[in-house]
Amino acid sequence: MPDDRTIPPLAEADRKRLDDLYHSLQVENGRILGYPCNGAFDYSPLYRFLAFPANNVGDPYLPSNYHLNTHELERELIATFATLTHAPEAHWGYVTSGGTEGNMYGIFLARELYPEGIVYHSEDTHYSVNKILRALHVRNIMIRSRPDGTIDLEDLEETIRIHRDVPPLIFANVGTTMKGAVDDLAGIHRILKRRAIQSYYIHADAALSGMILPFVDGAPPWDFQAPVDSISISGHKMIGCPFPCGVALARKANVERIARRVEYIGSLDTTIAGSRNAFAPLFLWYALKTVGLDGYRRRVRECFGVADYAVGRLTAAGCHAWRHPYSNTVVFDRPAEAVVRKWQLAVNDGIAHLIAMPHVTRAHVDQLVVDLRERP
Amino acid sequence: MPDDRTIPPLAEADRKRLDDLYHSLQVENGRILGYPCNGAFDYSPLYRFLAFPANNVGDPYLPSNYHLNTHELERELIATFATLTHAPEAHWGYVTSGGTEGNMYGIFLARELYPEGIVYHSEDTHYSVNKILRALHVRNIMIRSRPDGTIDLEDLEETIRIHRDVPPLIFANVGTTMKGAVDDLAGIHRILKRRAIQSYYIHADAALSGMILPFVDGAPPWDFQAPVDSISISGHKMIGCPFPCGVALARKANVERIARRVEYIGSLDTTIAGSRNAFAPLFLWYALKTVGLDGYRRRVRECFGVADYAVGRLTAAGCHAWRHPYSNTVVFDRPAEAVVRKWQLAVNDGIAHLIAMPHVTRAHVDQLVVDLRERP
Repeated sequence: MPDDRTIPPLAEADRKRLDDLYHSLQVENGRILGYPCNGAFDYSPLYRFLAFPANNVGDPYLPSNYHLNTHELERELIATFATLTHAPEAHWGYVTSGGTEGNMYGIFLARELYPEGIVYHSEDTHYSVNKILRALHVRNIMIRSRPDGTIDLEDLEETIRIHRDVPPLIFANVGTTMKGAVDDLAGIHRILKRRAIQSYYIHADAALSGMILPFVDGAPPWDFQAPVDSISISGHKMIGCPFPCGVALARKANVERIARRVEYIGSLDTTIAGSRNAFAPLFLWYALKTVGLDGYRRRVRECFGVADYAVGRLTAAGCHAWRHPYSNTVVFDRPAEAVVRKWQLAVNDGIAHLIAMPHVTRAHVDQLVVDLRERP
Repeated sequence: MPDDRTIPPLAEADRKRLDDLYHSLQVENGRILGYPCNGAFDYSPLYRFLAFPANNVGDPYLPSNYHLNTHELERELIATFATLTHAPEAHWGYVTSGGTEGNMYGIFLARELYPEGIVYHSEDTHYSVNKILRALHVRNIMIRSRPDGTIDLEDLEETIRIHRDVPPLIFANVGTTMKGAVDDLAGIHRILKRRAIQSYYIHADAALSGMILPFVDGAPPWDFQAPVDSISISGHKMIGCPFPCGVALARKANVERIARRVEYIGSLDTTIAGSRNAFAPLFLWYALKTVGLDGYRRRVRECFGVADYAVGRLTAAGCHAWRHPYSNTVVFDRPAEAVVRKWQLAVNDGIAHLIAMPHVTRAHVDQLVVDLRERP
């Protein structure tokens, strides 16, 4: 009698399909210039852990009835991010399934604190935020952006002035999707002060830049010292991870408002997702332990070097390239569709960008420029 | 000069910690009786894919600018689930990060269709649904449960009768968390008909049972033929997966209401999460291809055999054990805390349960009964 718990092998045709998929991923992996997914990682020493049905269900700071978890590593990881973001002693955080969950968490907290509040966000905000605002039923107003991608402070102040009867909930971009722009948080705080607004909330979407700015001397204010109230940082971007993940950080007092004790899991239901990927904290913890913070500082410097090289080469090719000094995102004129497709470039209206992630080399830039000259 | 893209090794102390974690997971993995996480899987032939920063961002049915995805396998997987759930030709689905996202998706769709609607859900509904309802700002009323865990139809009808001016949005449990109970969908449809209600929505939370009921002869109505409008099924439960994941299925016409074209990813933003784990569809596709539907039918039969054995042994031990004939969840008297902890049992008030998942054997049941006799 066959043991039903052994896994039969894959049929030959299906094995062939997986091989084809593997080779196609290999080819495409060498041509990701437009998306901020770092492909320079190696988690193979951790693969053995994938034999377990692990699950970080519930609050990482509380004991859980489900013992196959990596809550301990998750807490250490959050502590490292708390240091990088100058979080107050009384902070709280968890590892999310990615940017959408992290931003949803921040806006959810803001809305719970100020149910009548209005979210202000610039037109350069990531496309998913509209969906989150719609899902969470929050009043919101889109603010004009400046050409450099930052929120237009004049438009913001005028709009807040009209709605001074309700708390502003600022959705700040710390590295916009297309231009890598960081909203002027000092300017935002000046507006709040000038208008004598004491009830407000600021969430920072630092998906990519949250692991760049801590390593940039003279970076603009962006973290808990800016100050902001919550931050979302992606794990699969600057750190790099095979699956999307991220970190959500917030002030502890705010988080306690949405906690609810759940006997079933013997924990607090403070996270948006219930069951949570236990490998995301494990992988990110491993990355931070091996590469180290000094390693990331070097990587960011390297990336900026490649970004500068790209600005130079693309400018020479007549593509009007530029970047913010604190960002690895290089904006240039939108090229032909075939080039966009080949290099997986991100485009929006008349512009495109490449993002100098750790796997992007000067050789990649050279090849792109060759293609641009051939098919401008 | 060191290449900054090679990963340095882990320090000795950290390597030791990972080894300890591995061994602790090994031990605990042999003692999961209370949670529906199947530990009987082996995805090692797929580990090589974890070298890539894959991402199933966006709608699985549309081409994406980001080429490192497993959308093709995801579509095949959804097609298999559509067959298992008797979905109409015009269906749509995607692989989620787990039950919370799947249920959020269903309730979100319901609310978009009927913004003024009221969600009705029984008191035996999974704890996370309260959080979802709160996040999505949906009016909702909790309905009494019957002792067997199903929604009390009398209470439901009386409550719907009082609120006949707004569409009912029924959150149906297809396998409750604690008792594995399936809400009486035929009875719910009788109520809707009797009260002449034509605008309504039914979402089925079939986290665990969605991969059990298709293989049970004479199963109660629960799927698109019941009929329901959307279904959420977990991937890490009956199928088994190292990380949480799931499948959300819905009627296509409803989904099109929340779609929004996003140029940045060159796709439709129809999913709750933007970036999505590309390994979840890959792993689930592999499981269905290797184990096969006949294999799952055999597994379910095996699980029911172990569940019956547990009912017998626990009853003999004086623990008042029982199960629904269509469920592998065995309910019994709540034991001492030490036993709960050791076997990772789920408890609620005076009851506990074990769930006869594919990794649970008769030997496990015997050992549990020994512990129960020692520490009742």
